[in-house]
Amino acid sequence: MDTTETKNAIFPKGEHVPAAYFTGTAWLNMLVPHNPTFNTTVGNVVFEPGCRNNWHSHKGGQILICTDGEGYYQEKGKPIQLLRKGDVVQILPNLIHWHGATPTSEFTHIAIGPNAQMGAADWLEPVTDDEYNSYQP
Amino acid sequence: MDTTETKNAIFPKGEHVPAAYFTGTAWLNMLVPHNPTFNTTVGNVVFEPGCRNNWHSHKGGQILICTDGEGYYQEKGKPIQLLRKGDVVQILPNLIHWHGATPTSEFTHIAIGPNAQMGAADWLEPVTDDEYNSYQP
Repeated sequence: MDTTETKNAIFPKGEHVPAAYFTGTAWLNMLVPHNPTFNTTVGNVVFEPGCRNNWHSHKGGQILICTDGEGYYQEKGKPIQLLRKGDVVQILPNLIHWHGATPTSEFTHIAIGPNAQMGAADWLEPVTDDEYNSYQP
Repeated sequence: MDTTETKNAIFPKGEHVPAAYFTGTAWLNMLVPHNPTFNTTVGNVVFEPGCRNNWHSHKGGQILICTDGEGYYQEKGKPIQLLRKGDVVQILPNLIHWHGATPTSEFTHIAIGPNAQMGAADWLEPVTDDEYNSYQP
């Protein structure tokens, strides 16, 4: 448990995420774990600058609510999109994608996992430096 | 559409909510409307001080993510609970409850509607002033 807090953050940072699925350091605060009543998970994720998760997909899709900093989001075969506070990303089921912070900003989003009864994320290979550095404003 | 923004707010306030189901003024910014892919709705709600919604319940339950200000939450037959930034409320299906701002603070939460395919809220009677003023610290 890392108790370092970003100034004015909504949630404590929580626990370090599994290094196997991320490049760099990120924290997960699981707000609503999977349960059969809601079928919907909610977690707050904080990425340090330069951190991103591996390419992955979700059988039930995912919704990202960006709450602080600047981040990247990329769908397989498309250019990187810049994310800012207030942006909402609706990620379709089984769509291969990744997300993370920009090289110079911490980034925080709430990740909502709908249809959680369909299973957790399917993790793929890391995002290479060439892929990560391909953002064009 | 009301374009007034709270300083540092994550989302624009959105549209006034239907007066039939609220006492006082609130705004709803629907971030993810109901759709059959996610079966999960997401909306940001801002309550002015003193504003609260009617007693109501949700067939699929509801999750509140408190992001700013101070609010109240009450389940039928229980005392009012104070809500602050960072609090998460998991409301079971068909549980009769209400939520809103305190008398002196604006209050903002993200409302997640899981199992949205089960239908929208079932609205009941307004929260009386006696009920609203029953909070005991």
